[in-house]
Amino acid sequence: MTVCEGDCYIAVILDFVDGTEGCTKMAQKLLLQGLGILALGVLLNPTMAAAPQSALNLMPVPANVQAGTGSLRVDAAFSVALTGHTEPRLDRSVERFLHQLALQTALPISTKLATNPKATLVIQTEHASKEIQEVGEDESYVLEVTATGAKLTAPTPLGTMHGLQTFLQLVNVAPDGFAAPTVTIQDKPRFPWRGLMIDSARHFTTLDDLKRNIDGMEAVKMNVFHWHLSENQGFRAESKKFPKLHELGSDNLYYTQDEMRDLIAYARDRGIRVVPEFDMPGHSTAWFVGHPELASGKGPYGIERRWGIFDPAMDPTNEKVYKFLDELIGEMARIFPDHFFHIGGDEVNGKEWDANPRIQAFMKEHSIKNNEALQAYFSGRVQKLVTKHGKIVIGWDEVLVPGVPKDIVIQSWRGQTSLALAAKQGYRGILSNGYYLDLGWPAARHYAVDPMSGDATNLSPEEKERILGGESCMWSEYVNPENMDSRIWPRNAAIAERFWSPQNVTDVASMYARMDFISARLEWLGLTHKSYSRRMLHRIAGPASPLELTALRTLTDVVEPVKDYTREQTAPAEPTSLTPLNRVVDAIPLESDAGRHFGELVDQFLAASCRDTIAEARLRAQFMLWRDNDANLQPLAQRSFLVKEVAATSQDLSALGAAGLAALDQIAKGQPASDSWRAQQTAFVTQAMKPKAQLLLIPAPAVQKLIEAASAGGACSTAK
Amino acid sequence: MTVCEGDCYIAVILDFVDGTEGCTKMAQKLLLQGLGILALGVLLNPTMAAAPQSALNLMPVPANVQAGTGSLRVDAAFSVALTGHTEPRLDRSVERFLHQLALQTALPISTKLATNPKATLVIQTEHASKEIQEVGEDESYVLEVTATGAKLTAPTPLGTMHGLQTFLQLVNVAPDGFAAPTVTIQDKPRFPWRGLMIDSARHFTTLDDLKRNIDGMEAVKMNVFHWHLSENQGFRAESKKFPKLHELGSDNLYYTQDEMRDLIAYARDRGIRVVPEFDMPGHSTAWFVGHPELASGKGPYGIERRWGIFDPAMDPTNEKVYKFLDELIGEMARIFPDHFFHIGGDEVNGKEWDANPRIQAFMKEHSIKNNEALQAYFSGRVQKLVTKHGKIVIGWDEVLVPGVPKDIVIQSWRGQTSLALAAKQGYRGILSNGYYLDLGWPAARHYAVDPMSGDATNLSPEEKERILGGESCMWSEYVNPENMDSRIWPRNAAIAERFWSPQNVTDVASMYARMDFISARLEWLGLTHKSYSRRMLHRIAGPASPLELTALRTLTDVVEPVKDYTREQTAPAEPTSLTPLNRVVDAIPLESDAGRHFGELVDQFLAASCRDTIAEARLRAQFMLWRDNDANLQPLAQRSFLVKEVAATSQDLSALGAAGLAALDQIAKGQPASDSWRAQQTAFVTQAMKPKAQLLLIPAPAVQKLIEAASAGGACSTAK
Repeated sequence: MTVCEGDCYIAVILDFVDGTEGCTKMAQKLLLQGLGILALGVLLNPTMAAAPQSALNLMPVPANVQAGTGSLRVDAAFSVALTGHTEPRLDRSVERFLHQLALQTALPISTKLATNPKATLVIQTEHASKEIQEVGEDESYVLEVTATGAKLTAPTPLGTMHGLQTFLQLVNVAPDGFAAPTVTIQDKPRFPWRGLMIDSARHFTTLDDLKRNIDGMEAVKMNVFHWHLSENQGFRAESKKFPKLHELGSDNLYYTQDEMRDLIAYARDRGIRVVPEFDMPGHSTAWFVGHPELASGKGPYGIERRWGIFDPAMDPTNEKVYKFLDELIGEMARIFPDHFFHIGGDEVNGKEWDANPRIQAFMKEHSIKNNEALQAYFSGRVQKLVTKHGKIVIGWDEVLVPGVPKDIVIQSWRGQTSLALAAKQGYRGILSNGYYLDLGWPAARHYAVDPMSGDATNLSPEEKERILGGESCMWSEYVNPENMDSRIWPRNAAIAERFWSPQNVTDVASMYARMDFISARLEWLGLTHKSYSRRMLHRIAGPASPLELTALRTLTDVVEPVKDYTREQTAPAEPTSLTPLNRVVDAIPLESDAGRHFGELVDQFLAASCRDTIAEARLRAQFMLWRDNDANLQPLAQRSFLVKEVAATSQDLSALGAAGLAALDQIAKGQPASDSWRAQQTAFVTQAMKPKAQLLLIPAPAVQKLIEAASAGGACSTAK
Repeated sequence: MTVCEGDCYIAVILDFVDGTEGCTKMAQKLLLQGLGILALGVLLNPTMAAAPQSALNLMPVPANVQAGTGSLRVDAAFSVALTGHTEPRLDRSVERFLHQLALQTALPISTKLATNPKATLVIQTEHASKEIQEVGEDESYVLEVTATGAKLTAPTPLGTMHGLQTFLQLVNVAPDGFAAPTVTIQDKPRFPWRGLMIDSARHFTTLDDLKRNIDGMEAVKMNVFHWHLSENQGFRAESKKFPKLHELGSDNLYYTQDEMRDLIAYARDRGIRVVPEFDMPGHSTAWFVGHPELASGKGPYGIERRWGIFDPAMDPTNEKVYKFLDELIGEMARIFPDHFFHIGGDEVNGKEWDANPRIQAFMKEHSIKNNEALQAYFSGRVQKLVTKHGKIVIGWDEVLVPGVPKDIVIQSWRGQTSLALAAKQGYRGILSNGYYLDLGWPAARHYAVDPMSGDATNLSPEEKERILGGESCMWSEYVNPENMDSRIWPRNAAIAERFWSPQNVTDVASMYARMDFISARLEWLGLTHKSYSRRMLHRIAGPASPLELTALRTLTDVVEPVKDYTREQTAPAEPTSLTPLNRVVDAIPLESDAGRHFGELVDQFLAASCRDTIAEARLRAQFMLWRDNDANLQPLAQRSFLVKEVAATSQDLSALGAAGLAALDQIAKGQPASDSWRAQQTAFVTQAMKPKAQLLLIPAPAVQKLIEAASAGGACSTAK
């Protein structure tokens, strides 16, 4: 039927047939069981009637919200006045706010600041924030919306900017125009360090790609952009002191110093610090292309094209290395004003050290027992250089070695235990374990990770204060600008909420509802997380009939890329930085909404002892769609190698559909299925559970639940 | 069910229920009649099985295509070499081509030109084209694709660039990778003037908005961008001689001279001429804000906010006007290198002239009989100024008055008769009547308009040569950058084909199939014609449940804005340039694919004497969906004033659904319906046909056809 261009839900028409033609009971029953009966259902959404309109749809949830009654009209005359402390950054943030409000409403709202203090929204900022934004500055704000106006007060511009984002989220279409509900919000962040790391080194991302993601960070009140700038696969920062670094180490894909300054200013305008990372002594092959003298091996070195952990590492025993780093860190420290400087420090395999007799001799001479100690020596030296240039070191877990000064910050990829241990020793830390966006976890799983959980629970209040927050990480082995936004958003909004909102904000259903809504809003910022998929699927399909495109969509709606590091482990050929990211696994979101909704629907059906006929009808309709989908997809698979790759997954989905129908039929009989039936059906699901083309069929476990229920029999009473 | 983000088709699951449970004949019949029977159908697409894969999907269709067998592999090693004539523009066009090819395939194709002449694609350009692109330059090319390589030969870079676009359209995903089919194409345009006019004056459009549309023009081989730069509502070109023009006449929304030069260079790089239009003596209120001395009335003048034809007009009797225009035209003629200069000349109502005694006295003194003659006098004077500055005048029909030099070009908004008359008199002309994109015609209707039809058919060959081609026009009363692309694309591709392809290329079904495919391709250029709608509908809906969003989409999929100038005539309040364009009428495409498909399905059903049970089942399912849709939309209408506006249309759609079902039931009886039944059902359709909220319900006429068929009875034999 109708072409739906945007978010739309495949609707299934299932309707009571008028009994006027002498419809018998049997026909009624047949209809009920065979096709299900719905006025008109959104098939897999179990909460089909629940509109989120009653909630405020704020994300992250503020610390304190007191809802009022009534609303403030937002029309073309909407204006903003700045009182109290002012600065150009505040002017710009208000102009940006007004521009965004105009976009959101399409009202001809002027983006100029009101000179009249009787504006619709009056802002009172008490004083300036620090010239160089610090960890733990006051970011609080109070936003009062009444029917006649709004007032935003904040100690610093940081709070003001957060309050403006909250206001934007409050404004929606209403019965008589656009409006913001009356409300009083007192808000402040739970953690002072709320970051997103983007790996611009493995796959290069342009400044524009980063800027729109920084806009997204601002929208969800994140305040640290951690910029991973160097890797085995590329050195992405222009160095004027050592131009061979970027000239030979980046395939000509690097940021000029002006561009870096531009991005820093862009982020500062949004209350976001920029922490650069120059990963050393490992993860540094690209440095050695132009400067093999820094390495521990003989070279020559080429830009690494593969992914993984590699041997090349800086030579910790070479004084020239520290001289070089002194100059480079100095140069970069002058570009990046932030107080923190990330030196990486992760994943050194030590092989080049082991193989270098001079390094081995040095270790003996200085009683350095092992490579860990050698890295500690290196980290200590580098830490002093960073300090010399007025910065504080931040590094991955590995930099925490005995004797490191107490002011450094640990970024933990290892987890809460490591973090808590650091805190106990007096070190500050942030959590990234559990927040790796590229691993493909569902939002709920990231959402459940709390920096204060696990071993951190038992810390003293003083120790707890050392846990500054966390950072989500977007590593880019399988991410390039085309699909990057979809790998970050909307799930990053759930993590941002974890860092900002009170610890007891944990309702997953609410999170998903609000995340869906914010996700649509993020499109106004130019983020492509919703729009990229259609374009990529068109590339995959090539010229195709509407039916074929539908079949491809039906399949891709319920698959997800394999999780964690399985993609590396199951790659058909060794992937490199030149491998095209044009496969189905690249074109689909990392979390399948349809898959999630299907699981919820199965649970709902089982929770009702399999007596929920509406849910049953929906499941049945869904299973038929899946069962028959493969026939429509196969012609396309003959024409497109990118579709052919998922042909087996498509067959699995058909089998899942058939197994699901069989299970429902069996359940309807009210008697336990035979063991052989169970074994047979389970075999289909087991097959469907095997990843193929690096894809997971998300509905498989829920179908297995139905098979188990059918095997238990008795209207699923035991399965329940 | 599943969230479908892109083009997807609402699929309806209608399936044979296994007869295992003793299904009676009656139940079978009920299922057949009540719900229809399909393995899995794309509901409204009558040609559900026809994939366009066999065709080459080229648009515009080339003059001559000889298909071969096999294909040329396109992989990461793809390279292009330039031989023969070279120039930096060709280098850039090849780099752009390679960039586009990389985007289209996601292959890591280098965008650098090959130095090795044994490249995958070897280009041989014979000689340069004119420094300033002329009308009628050789734009032909020959493209030969074999299994081992491709060769593109063209007399000039213009042909080379067209050939590159054709090659891009040939490349698709294939069974073993990306490939272009082997083919020999000899191609050249039918008309030398193939333009798109964009009105940047009524609603301002940024340079980026224009650039991506110029990219779209290049993709479909259009070669003239006609830039409507001045209007009652705005003077959009920076004048250094008369800065008050843009400073007071543009709300600060204007193009700097550097920006205009930038756009001209951008267009020239794509083989596209830029013809500026400064509309005079009418349509010029914005000029008079800063320069009231040019006007025929007393002033003062303000920027016009309303739409329509207004009184202010330049004073043709004032020598200072010509002195002013001499300088301004001179200034603009130096910026715009094109040989043509558009002086507008349309729609002067003459009221200011009538009211000005000095003008009346002048007319008497010079024996100028009426306002038409006065305008002719003005046009003649201006034409001489344009000539003085080395340009040829182009103007709307009105500039063609006795005595005008034969080199001017008429742009006809009046039609073929006017155009043919001009050609007979020795004037060259281009057709725009029939190509006004903003009037909301379906692509097929534009496609059927031919510059050589009507009175032009009877012209002599010499006279026919004077018809240079045509221009599509995007007037912007109800168009701003947010929805502009959707108002231009994809329908403009059909018009581009009319101007380029042989006259006998007229198959509408082929046009639509290819247009759909090219439309998806145009997204790679950044055009927003497919992505804007979701964002606008989210604004309209506000926080909404999936079910509500589906209901809104179901409705908006089958409505179109009222056509021609009905929007002005039916506006609830007088629209102005400040009226928000955020209503449903602004958010939907101008042509409803679903509406078109529904009409085709009804025709198919009737053509089969109402015996096509598959078509019947689909119609029935569609009608049920529509009938029940309103109940799901109404809660949203309570919350959003933008949805509330379409609540009556939604009720009409429900009524159409019910009437359609009644008609199918009646047809199934095989007897003619009663007159009273017919009158009753027709009343529903009549009501649905009345535009509401400036929307048309596209399926209404087809539903009426079914009612007529039901009234005729006898398996529709008479209706057929």
